[in-house]
Amino acid sequence: MKRISILNGIVGYKKKVGLAPGTLVHVGEEEARTCELSLIQYDADDVHESSIEADTDFGALRKEDKVCWLNVDGLDDVDVIDRIGEAFGVHDLILEDVLNTGQRPKLEEAEEGLFITVKMLQANEGQISSEQVSMIVGDGYVISFQERAGDVFESVRERLRSGRGRVRKAGADYLAYCLLDAIVDNYFAVLEQLGERIEADQVQLMEEPDEEVLAEVHGLKREMIFLRRAVWPLREAINALSKSDSPVIRKETRIYVNDVYDHTMQIIETLETFRDVVAGMFDMYLSSVSNRMNSVMKVLTIIATIFIPLSFIAGVYGMNFNNMPELTTGWMYPLGFWLMVFAVAVGMLGFFKYKKWL
Amino acid sequence: MKRISILNGIVGYKKKVGLAPGTLVHVGEEEARTCELSLIQYDADDVHESSIEADTDFGALRKEDKVCWLNVDGLDDVDVIDRIGEAFGVHDLILEDVLNTGQRPKLEEAEEGLFITVKMLQANEGQISSEQVSMIVGDGYVISFQERAGDVFESVRERLRSGRGRVRKAGADYLAYCLLDAIVDNYFAVLEQLGERIEADQVQLMEEPDEEVLAEVHGLKREMIFLRRAVWPLREAINALSKSDSPVIRKETRIYVNDVYDHTMQIIETLETFRDVVAGMFDMYLSSVSNRMNSVMKVLTIIATIFIPLSFIAGVYGMNFNNMPELTTGWMYPLGFWLMVFAVAVGMLGFFKYKKWL
Amino acid sequence: MKRISILNGIVGYKKKVGLAPGTLVHVGEEEARTCELSLIQYDADDVHESSIEADTDFGALRKEDKVCWLNVDGLDDVDVIDRIGEAFGVHDLILEDVLNTGQRPKLEEAEEGLFITVKMLQANEGQISSEQVSMIVGDGYVISFQERAGDVFESVRERLRSGRGRVRKAGADYLAYCLLDAIVDNYFAVLEQLGERIEADQVQLMEEPDEEVLAEVHGLKREMIFLRRAVWPLREAINALSKSDSPVIRKETRIYVNDVYDHTMQIIETLETFRDVVAGMFDMYLSSVSNRMNSVMKVLTIIATIFIPLSFIAGVYGMNFNNMPELTTGWMYPLGFWLMVFAVAVGMLGFFKYKKWL
Amino acid sequence: MKRISILNGIVGYKKKVGLAPGTLVHVGEEEARTCELSLIQYDADDVHESSIEADTDFGALRKEDKVCWLNVDGLDDVDVIDRIGEAFGVHDLILEDVLNTGQRPKLEEAEEGLFITVKMLQANEGQISSEQVSMIVGDGYVISFQERAGDVFESVRERLRSGRGRVRKAGADYLAYCLLDAIVDNYFAVLEQLGERIEADQVQLMEEPDEEVLAEVHGLKREMIFLRRAVWPLREAINALSKSDSPVIRKETRIYVNDVYDHTMQIIETLETFRDVVAGMFDMYLSSVSNRMNSVMKVLTIIATIFIPLSFIAGVYGMNFNNMPELTTGWMYPLGFWLMVFAVAVGMLGFFKYKKWL
Amino acid sequence: MKRISILNGIVGYKKKVGLAPGTLVHVGEEEARTCELSLIQYDADDVHESSIEADTDFGALRKEDKVCWLNVDGLDDVDVIDRIGEAFGVHDLILEDVLNTGQRPKLEEAEEGLFITVKMLQANEGQISSEQVSMIVGDGYVISFQERAGDVFESVRERLRSGRGRVRKAGADYLAYCLLDAIVDNYFAVLEQLGERIEADQVQLMEEPDEEVLAEVHGLKREMIFLRRAVWPLREAINALSKSDSPVIRKETRIYVNDVYDHTMQIIETLETFRDVVAGMFDMYLSSVSNRMNSVMKVLTIIATIFIPLSFIAGVYGMNFNNMPELTTGWMYPLGFWLMVFAVAVGMLGFFKYKKWL
Ligand SMILES: [Mg+2]
Ligand SMILES: [Mg+2]
Ligand SMILES: [Mg+2]
Ligand SMILES: [Mg+2]
Ligand SMILES: [Mg+2]
Ligand SMILES: [Mg+2]
Ligand SMILES: [Mg+2]
Ligand SMILES: [Mg+2]
Ligand SMILES: [Mg+2]
Ligand SMILES: [Mg+2]
Ligand SMILES: [Mg+2]
Ligand SMILES: [Mg+2]
Ligand SMILES: [Mg+2]
Ligand SMILES: [Mg+2]
Ligand SMILES: [Mg+2]
Ligand SMILES: [Mg+2]
Ligand SMILES: [Mg+2]
Ligand SMILES: [Mg+2]
Ligand SMILES: [Mg+2]
Ligand SMILES: [Mg+2]
Ligand SMILES: [Mg+2]
Ligand SMILES: [Mg+2]
Ligand SMILES: [Mg+2]
Ligand SMILES: [Mg+2]
Ligand SMILES: [Mg+2]
Ligand SMILES: [Mg+2]
Ligand SMILES: [Mg+2]
Ligand SMILES: [Mg+2]
Ligand SMILES: [Mg+2]
Ligand SMILES: [Mg+2]
Ligand SMILES: [Mg+2]
Repeated sequence: MKRISILNGIVGYKKKVGLAPGTLVHVGEEEARTCELSLIQYDADDVHESSIEADTDFGALRKEDKVCWLNVDGLDDVDVIDRIGEAFGVHDLILEDVLNTGQRPKLEEAEEGLFITVKMLQANEGQISSEQVSMIVGDGYVISFQERAGDVFESVRERLRSGRGRVRKAGADYLAYCLLDAIVDNYFAVLEQLGERIEADQVQLMEEPDEEVLAEVHGLKREMIFLRRAVWPLREAINALSKSDSPVIRKETRIYVNDVYDHTMQIIETLETFRDVVAGMFDMYLSSVSNRMNSVMKVLTIIATIFIPLSFIAGVYGMNFNNMPELTTGWMYPLGFWLMVFAVAVGMLGFFKYKKWL
Repeated sequence: MKRISILNGIVGYKKKVGLAPGTLVHVGEEEARTCELSLIQYDADDVHESSIEADTDFGALRKEDKVCWLNVDGLDDVDVIDRIGEAFGVHDLILEDVLNTGQRPKLEEAEEGLFITVKMLQANEGQISSEQVSMIVGDGYVISFQERAGDVFESVRERLRSGRGRVRKAGADYLAYCLLDAIVDNYFAVLEQLGERIEADQVQLMEEPDEEVLAEVHGLKREMIFLRRAVWPLREAINALSKSDSPVIRKETRIYVNDVYDHTMQIIETLETFRDVVAGMFDMYLSSVSNRMNSVMKVLTIIATIFIPLSFIAGVYGMNFNNMPELTTGWMYPLGFWLMVFAVAVGMLGFFKYKKWL
Repeated sequence: MKRISILNGIVGYKKKVGLAPGTLVHVGEEEARTCELSLIQYDADDVHESSIEADTDFGALRKEDKVCWLNVDGLDDVDVIDRIGEAFGVHDLILEDVLNTGQRPKLEEAEEGLFITVKMLQANEGQISSEQVSMIVGDGYVISFQERAGDVFESVRERLRSGRGRVRKAGADYLAYCLLDAIVDNYFAVLEQLGERIEADQVQLMEEPDEEVLAEVHGLKREMIFLRRAVWPLREAINALSKSDSPVIRKETRIYVNDVYDHTMQIIETLETFRDVVAGMFDMYLSSVSNRMNSVMKVLTIIATIFIPLSFIAGVYGMNFNNMPELTTGWMYPLGFWLMVFAVAVGMLGFFKYKKWL
Repeated sequence: MKRISILNGIVGYKKKVGLAPGTLVHVGEEEARTCELSLIQYDADDVHESSIEADTDFGALRKEDKVCWLNVDGLDDVDVIDRIGEAFGVHDLILEDVLNTGQRPKLEEAEEGLFITVKMLQANEGQISSEQVSMIVGDGYVISFQERAGDVFESVRERLRSGRGRVRKAGADYLAYCLLDAIVDNYFAVLEQLGERIEADQVQLMEEPDEEVLAEVHGLKREMIFLRRAVWPLREAINALSKSDSPVIRKETRIYVNDVYDHTMQIIETLETFRDVVAGMFDMYLSSVSNRMNSVMKVLTIIATIFIPLSFIAGVYGMNFNNMPELTTGWMYPLGFWLMVFAVAVGMLGFFKYKKWL
Repeated sequence: MKRISILNGIVGYKKKVGLAPGTLVHVGEEEARTCELSLIQYDADDVHESSIEADTDFGALRKEDKVCWLNVDGLDDVDVIDRIGEAFGVHDLILEDVLNTGQRPKLEEAEEGLFITVKMLQANEGQISSEQVSMIVGDGYVISFQERAGDVFESVRERLRSGRGRVRKAGADYLAYCLLDAIVDNYFAVLEQLGERIEADQVQLMEEPDEEVLAEVHGLKREMIFLRRAVWPLREAINALSKSDSPVIRKETRIYVNDVYDHTMQIIETLETFRDVVAGMFDMYLSSVSNRMNSVMKVLTIIATIFIPLSFIAGVYGMNFNNMPELTTGWMYPLGFWLMVFAVAVGMLGFFKYKKWL
């Protein structure tokens, strides 16, 4: 994950200040100048997949007895999004939310259908990328908006093509569930990667606590905050979806929504566990550092306390008093002096041993 | 932002002690002796803007089929505010709240209309200024009270003049929404500025932790407390507004109120993120300081532990014993002594290397 | 505020152990042996104020069409309180609460009327005093009990005497509101004084952190706990009052009760702000102390690390080896030695400068 | 209070593993082999007190128009408890709870009556003892079970004997209330004793922070946890009792139950105050220790920094260079040298004074 | 307990990413390749126990008037579980949950019956093992799934065989209760073992705080997090069970479910007590370490401050000034010098004694 700014979530919002409500502006980093549109239309018997042009008549895409999934990659071509909104009768404020990539995950129920916006996370080669996915789910259609190309929906497309599972037989609501489920399933992969980093950092913290690993811990904290901001409202949104009495969600789909809800709960618990552990890592660092400080101080103390009295003795016999009988006693230097030195050193070391400092 | 006193919110309240309920007194810093009044009257076809005098007959301002927005800048001329209150049938207690600039943001529903009071923040050139804005919204009119001239409503006035957007076609409730929306949008700009200061302080905390940056962190904490006190009740007030069954808020405006509500949630989440980060900054400071202390101690320890034994050796050969054969051995000083010195120094340095202190 | 004991709130309760429920005993510090009674009777046209004797027939005080406010100063004359209770039909358990000065602020609705008990705070000359005030509010009468003479009701009495404001025209419920409002308004003065002490302590903490200011901080914490215990239940009680459907509280008074409720919220927010700030003061102390420790250590390190090598050099040339050519070189002491000293000192200082310790 | 184990609350539970639900086993420390039974039967006119045998026919104890209070001291004679249960129609699971002395305080409503279990605390001579008391309250009877002889009910018995207060005129529900009230009143005495220990420890913490007082603080924390586990569910139970619509609790008793509820709230607030204070004591210890450390370091620094330069000077003039003119200057030692020493010492002390270290 | 990974709860989940909802895959560590099935069928009069094969016709196992308990040990043979699901009409999503061993404990109500999944803990010889147990409870049958052979149900089987207790006379719901009760009872044994470890670690922390015991504390924290994740949702699930209006749970069983609920509350309280205590252990470590550091520093300070002035004196009389009258005074060395040394040493020691450092 590239370094997460604490400004994430409001970045680029300044562009909106002073604009009339419902004015469409892409809020967020500009990623793709273009806007790619792909369409899948299917029923139990048949499936048809196509890539479509920006100037299509979107109103003609809805078919009586087929489910239509329109996917939009890239939010910079505001005009296309505006025309899609008109064709499917989407309120301007909802289109505004589609374009505001700092939007909190949420579910909104309109007359026409449901609007769901969530964060899609992907873990590739040690990198985690985040993208806002918005879905408009109506009777017979799902429109999904992504910030850029690339998503976690390939398995859903595969099932649609092959006709495996319930998806072809069920309606647009089940498709929307499948997309949500795919997104939520990928959170587990992200968590696993994060958890492995945490475990590795803990080992390093114990063994070699330096400023680098401390910076890592601060980074983990930020990522955790980011993930919590993505997951907690997601849980709210999915809960609202399972409680919703919108006709768009059929009774037989509700049990599937409950299942995704369980998964978000499992994700939240894991995340909170991580948070408790990461919160404890600063304490581990402090105690590790203070242990090291302790052992540094002990070495200083041991060496100093041994040599300070010894130096005093040497100092005494370096004095120039006339009347110092020891100086003229022949065995005093080779025997008496070195014995004194030995006795002090051994005595001190014994004292340290007794105090359990060695 | 000028240094925020913790007394903010109750400052000047002492003036009120002992007064009868409903007595009008401006509570807060006195800012403007005068009170400027401006009026915009409009319908879908027409708009009329004027600045009016303090001695106007306010009762005559309401027009049957036009929306009337009366804006009051400056709260010190209590008499004007009293007469406006009478003309529009506003309860004395509500006028008291208009004048109490420490008032918590809130929504109050009266028979005549709605009363909303919020904090308006503006970010200009690294300075953030705060001002209480109160609005009385009734059938066909909005009265807004500000502490002083200058606001964030210029874009709304511009839309009123030009007739862009829905505002000219909609009623007083939509105008009130537009004003709230303009205020809330400006919180994002304030947050962005704050976030940038936090990021800068974090870097300095890591690189050069001194008492100055610590004071900065304490300052940030205070500003955060101030912002939270402005935003959390704002969210409550807007929530109450969207749930209100007052006839003043029409059904088609409600969806817009929900949109502002989303924005306050986004602001609150960003603010709580900042708070978590700022809370962690004190820990960063402590660990940064303790790391520095550590390296200071290490230098002391290394130099002391190398030279203490060396000084002892020098002390030994400075003793005046008669019988010290080393002293008379010719190669002892240039060779033996300096070899000893070299051996001790290298041994010590090796020991430190082994202990990973170097 | 005299030092607040953590036992405050249960002090003297031991007297009650083993007594039958409803037995009247003054729980709290004994303050006044006597019990002073004063009476104000009024209607829109007239007001009559008198001080009355302990052996009055309290039953005769109620007048058909006048509001009667009986104030009792001092709770030690249990007999008087018992007879008042009987005259106005007050339940024994409520009289017990009047006498229990550790009682939590609360509202109780009985058939006869309302019972409200709160803490009255007064700030005089840097001292804050606290006193429990209980009120029994019925149809046409208010009875207030205080622990001792002196209160914050003088402004209410003044309004009663002069007939200013609504109070003479309204009923007993409005009088009770006025008393509560006077009490709550005085909390602002107390908070202001407390806030000023906090600000002063913060400055001292930064500039001269000693054990005295730390003791101050611990004292502030205690006072904050005491205030929170007074204010949070007060808010509950006032909220219950505004929600109460007792016939004693008339519809037109309810809006005034809501206004006091707003004030308690403002007080609570200010108090919580203080609490956050005071909680941070211990961190400020720790960091201030550790900064000082740091600079002490640095001075020791700098002086020691400069002189330790110098002393070694001096020690070397104090040795008594026969063969030390340096000693006999004429320019060695005045030039060579002092140059070495100078070089070591300058080198060390340069190193510290480079390490940013100076 | 003897040292409280953290296992308290589940101690001895292992005996139950694998037993069928409703199997009666005394869980807890075995205290009394025997089981003492005492009976009080009363109505408004008459009271009869007796001690009864274990082989009594318990079914015969209930009298049509008298209230019967059967008290059981000691839970080891499971058979007696079983037969009491049968005689009064008590469910096996409730008898199990009577015997499980780690049971959380709770209220359970059965068809036959109410089951209440609480912790009874007693403070005698600096010792606090805890005991589980369970009560079964039915129409015309109260059965109380205690772990061992000795309780806080003597005042209730006294009132029953003398006929003072309401107790003889009221029913079994009022008797149960009186017992609860006696238990709750004794919590105040326990809190007072605890509060005095806390205050004493705080003083010692400030004046002489050693490991002993730290151990005291850890002990206080444990006792606080124990008390909270007793009081919070007690509050719940009494609240449930006051809300209960069981016919066993008559309308006129409800106001008394509310009064006990107030007392538990007062206890909880005091306890939470204690907890806040005890939580702060560890901080006080740390800062006290760090202050001491600080002053130790200062003494070392002052003495070292004064003598290190002095020793260097002495070292310089102990060198054996031939060409040291100072050595042969007559006034150099008695005047020049000691002046230098004096200047350095005074300079250093001045520097420390200036730095405010002295 | 083998070291608990923070990834526990999501381990192996990656296998599921991209699969259609309801696809059966064993998520968790692979433990048993095989899948052992055992069956107990009983009514009040009779009991029949058998081990059955994987290729049985599971649909034939249900008997009109007998209760059937099918236990499955091992989740790797997905096919068997699939066929059981079909035979008893279990929804695919529920079978998915059975196989997902990181599933949060929960209760789910389906038309066919109830689905309960919990964690079963066992404490054997200082080791705690955890296993997910899922139960499907319908009209006349209980199916239990375990991760591997070995459980805590032996006492239930014993009661079924012998006909002791209510279990043979009651229905499938009572059997399910008995299994839950057996699981919950074993939590007490686990807690007891954990509590004993905590107490032992506390003692060591006080007496000999080293990095090993600190690692123990970090381990305890992890286990606590794990236990909390097992117990809190368990409580929710059992609460939902006792509130459930499913026809599967008969009225007379409900009181038993409430009893298990009480036990989970008791477990939670004990666990939270442990958590508070373990949270305090890091503080104990820090203060223990800082106490040790303190005493190390004191020894250094005492020895250094005594000898530094003494060495200075020795240095002075080692100077080579011509004019040092002390040097030639005969009694100066043996008397004057050693007296000075003695005076300084005694003075210093007295000073330390006075400062209470000795
Ligand atoms: Mg806008
Ligand atoms: Mg929006
Ligand atoms: Mg967000
Ligand atoms: Mg994409
Ligand atoms: Mg899934
Ligand atoms: Mg947690
Ligand atoms: Mg007032
Ligand atoms: Mg405010
Ligand atoms: Mg303005
Ligand atoms: Mg907006
Ligand atoms: Mg947070
Ligand atoms: Mg901290
Ligand atoms: Mg009592
Ligand atoms: Mg009471
Ligand atoms: Mg109180
Ligand atoms: Mg008074
Ligand atoms: Mg007021
Ligand atoms: Mg107000
Ligand atoms: Mg707060
Ligand atoms: Mg059992
Ligand atoms: Mg308990
Ligand atoms: Mg007893
Ligand atoms: Mg009581
Ligand atoms: Mg608290
Ligand atoms: Mg899946
Ligand atoms: Mg599932
Ligand atoms: Mg789990
Ligand atoms: Mg098993
Ligand atoms: Mg059990
Ligand atoms: Mg039980
Ligand atoms: Mg702490």
